[in-house]
Amino acid sequence: MSDQSARDIVTDDDIALAHDRIDDIVNRTPVDISTTFAEMSGATSVGLKLENMQRTGSFKIRGAYNTMAQLSDEVKERGVIASSAGNHAQGVALAGDRLGIETTIVVPEVTPAAKIEATRGYGAEVIVEGEIYEDSYEYALERADEDNLEFVHPFNDEGVIAGQGTIGRELLEQYPDLDTVLVSIGGGGLISGIATVLKHHDRSIRVIGVQPVGAYHAKPSLEHDEIRELSEIDTVAEGIADTRLLEKTFAVIREYVDDVVSVSDLQMSVALTLLAERAKTVVETAGAAPVAALLSDAVDVEGEHVAAIVSGGNVNLTEHSELTKTGLMQLGRYAKVEIAVATWPTGVSAVTNVIESQGAELDVLERTRRTAQDDPNRTPIRVGIEGSSTEHLQSVIDALDSLGQISVTSHTLN
Amino acid sequence: MSDQSARDIVTDDDIALAHDRIDDIVNRTPVDISTTFAEMSGATSVGLKLENMQRTGSFKIRGAYNTMAQLSDEVKERGVIASSAGNHAQGVALAGDRLGIETTIVVPEVTPAAKIEATRGYGAEVIVEGEIYEDSYEYALERADEDNLEFVHPFNDEGVIAGQGTIGRELLEQYPDLDTVLVSIGGGGLISGIATVLKHHDRSIRVIGVQPVGAYHAKPSLEHDEIRELSEIDTVAEGIADTRLLEKTFAVIREYVDDVVSVSDLQMSVALTLLAERAKTVVETAGAAPVAALLSDAVDVEGEHVAAIVSGGNVNLTEHSELTKTGLMQLGRYAKVEIAVATWPTGVSAVTNVIESQGAELDVLERTRRTAQDDPNRTPIRVGIEGSSTEHLQSVIDALDSLGQISVTSHTLN
Repeated sequence: MSDQSARDIVTDDDIALAHDRIDDIVNRTPVDISTTFAEMSGATSVGLKLENMQRTGSFKIRGAYNTMAQLSDEVKERGVIASSAGNHAQGVALAGDRLGIETTIVVPEVTPAAKIEATRGYGAEVIVEGEIYEDSYEYALERADEDNLEFVHPFNDEGVIAGQGTIGRELLEQYPDLDTVLVSIGGGGLISGIATVLKHHDRSIRVIGVQPVGAYHAKPSLEHDEIRELSEIDTVAEGIADTRLLEKTFAVIREYVDDVVSVSDLQMSVALTLLAERAKTVVETAGAAPVAALLSDAVDVEGEHVAAIVSGGNVNLTEHSELTKTGLMQLGRYAKVEIAVATWPTGVSAVTNVIESQGAELDVLERTRRTAQDDPNRTPIRVGIEGSSTEHLQSVIDALDSLGQISVTSHTLN
Repeated sequence: MSDQSARDIVTDDDIALAHDRIDDIVNRTPVDISTTFAEMSGATSVGLKLENMQRTGSFKIRGAYNTMAQLSDEVKERGVIASSAGNHAQGVALAGDRLGIETTIVVPEVTPAAKIEATRGYGAEVIVEGEIYEDSYEYALERADEDNLEFVHPFNDEGVIAGQGTIGRELLEQYPDLDTVLVSIGGGGLISGIATVLKHHDRSIRVIGVQPVGAYHAKPSLEHDEIRELSEIDTVAEGIADTRLLEKTFAVIREYVDDVVSVSDLQMSVALTLLAERAKTVVETAGAAPVAALLSDAVDVEGEHVAAIVSGGNVNLTEHSELTKTGLMQLGRYAKVEIAVATWPTGVSAVTNVIESQGAELDVLERTRRTAQDDPNRTPIRVGIEGSSTEHLQSVIDALDSLGQISVTSHTLN
């Protein structure tokens, strides 16, 4: 298997044909030129390819549509089936809706109701089956066999890889001076398509894969020149929480991808936060992985034109809010402070006056219970505060410190 | 004053010249075609012109740069001054940085530290002076006089209006079949520029202004055909919290704007929430006003091609999180529930099991104190829950209801 040449999987022509097929269906997503991320990374320029603004909220519609459009009329008539806990489900469902193909999606029990709802919204039949994704996958294969349905694989499929490759074509038009592109890897479909296009255009463009520390299998696979599988994964970035590449994506990646680096969940939270604050864009954790790599020491982009593929934005808002608080804490911009202020004569107002007079954002405030050891002339208060910079937050904390004993819970990158 | 013709203020040619002046400095922001908002409003298509992705996070750089670029060398040498609590400050500061003009910005005491920081980041001198904006404005005029500095007005200025008009030019290229455009009004600079371009191109394009209920002065001004001033304003949308138009913007608006409608702070919160969840874009409250109008009954866009100008995204993340919770509550998608469950044998797990098994998002959970009247075999718990739809949230609440007495705090639009 590992001797299979990349040229056997998809070609630049396949991707050009995919482009023609999907052009009327998908958005040509914008490339946002980010001065902020260029300054933070030392790059000459940074372009964010915003596939979170793609229809269905991720790039997956490109590959799903390209594969499904090429099915024979007879196969289309019978219908397709897929397994997915997220973005591929929505891609297959919308493609089915547009092509008039009945779709069945098997999702694991843990799938958030919002994603099930969105998938049903595109007209798919959703079956909840299996504790984890692998169980849903097995069940979908069985059902494909029994019900004579076409199984659409999320990444190990030529049509899917070619469809994702259309992002690379757009990038070359929208951001032509490209030196390095950063792309997340789950099962490897996205990077396989993009790398094929870019390397066909110019071998010197550097293609770097990014994975979570807790799902870091592509690098070991490249190092050992065989597919390595993880026995368990641990990452909040469920969009790229795969255990392994498969033969098609492995063949392309070993041919065309220059390197693979890893980023931590905390680094992705920081990137997600900065994408919201500075680029004004909402991404899911996996969608922040390439920017996390850009801002890390793992990749040197000094003086380069760099593109980061922001792959998706399907995250519920409650979770997004929590992730940005984690990110702000990592950046030294949000602190939880417990403070015992004099009950008399100042009281709670002493704390709120300090925070508001310094222009900081008071998130939450709680007047808590004393412990048995506490001085009765001390009122315990717990606050969450957002500052505009590390220095600003520190000056607020210092001012609170002068009011009474304080204990600060927060984290910084250092 | 009110007899002054719109043709005296800015012309289409002025705006074409402004375009040439600012083209290398500003982003040509994308127009995102939103299927979601088209379906929700009955429009044939909806294009979101994303000026929140503009440099400095709002459109204001366009007008500030256009005016400042036209100053004489001698005036540039002396420097400029402006007053602003927000986006205009950053626009003037960045324009000054690019043009090599020293800038001084007077901000009121209430200005969030983050905005002061961003303004200083572009090299401006920031002076904190005045309890409210009007005081800062007066002080800036005094200083302009004393220090011989050029005052750059945020909206009542031909160059500023022409600069903002470049958005209209871009829109005609990016979204040519336009029937109706929705634009927020604070002091009226943005809509004046855009209306001038669009009406010059095609008188039949409808231009509708949007204001907060709590700062609704443009409609009364049009109705009475004279500028009406509000004695007080009450809105969370500080970006458009002006008390009045001034003679230049009034002259253009009475000539070219077809209607002005109002939206409530709650409607803007819902629009901001849907922009984050569906369009994956982070906006400040004022930036959500046109979408709020689109989704309201105030404007009929059935069968039309509609553009909404998303004017800015400068909001801190803590505040954005709170606004999205308000929006989700309005949409019937987030509830605060107080429930007294049997302490024994089920306890807290009964509650968490219900929420997690139904795939809802548990935001916060608190085990609270009983009151004197409470049954000792009841444990009071307070939870915040996000559901994927009204029906989904209701089914979770119903399941919780079967566990014990519950009290639900949430709001819906109905």
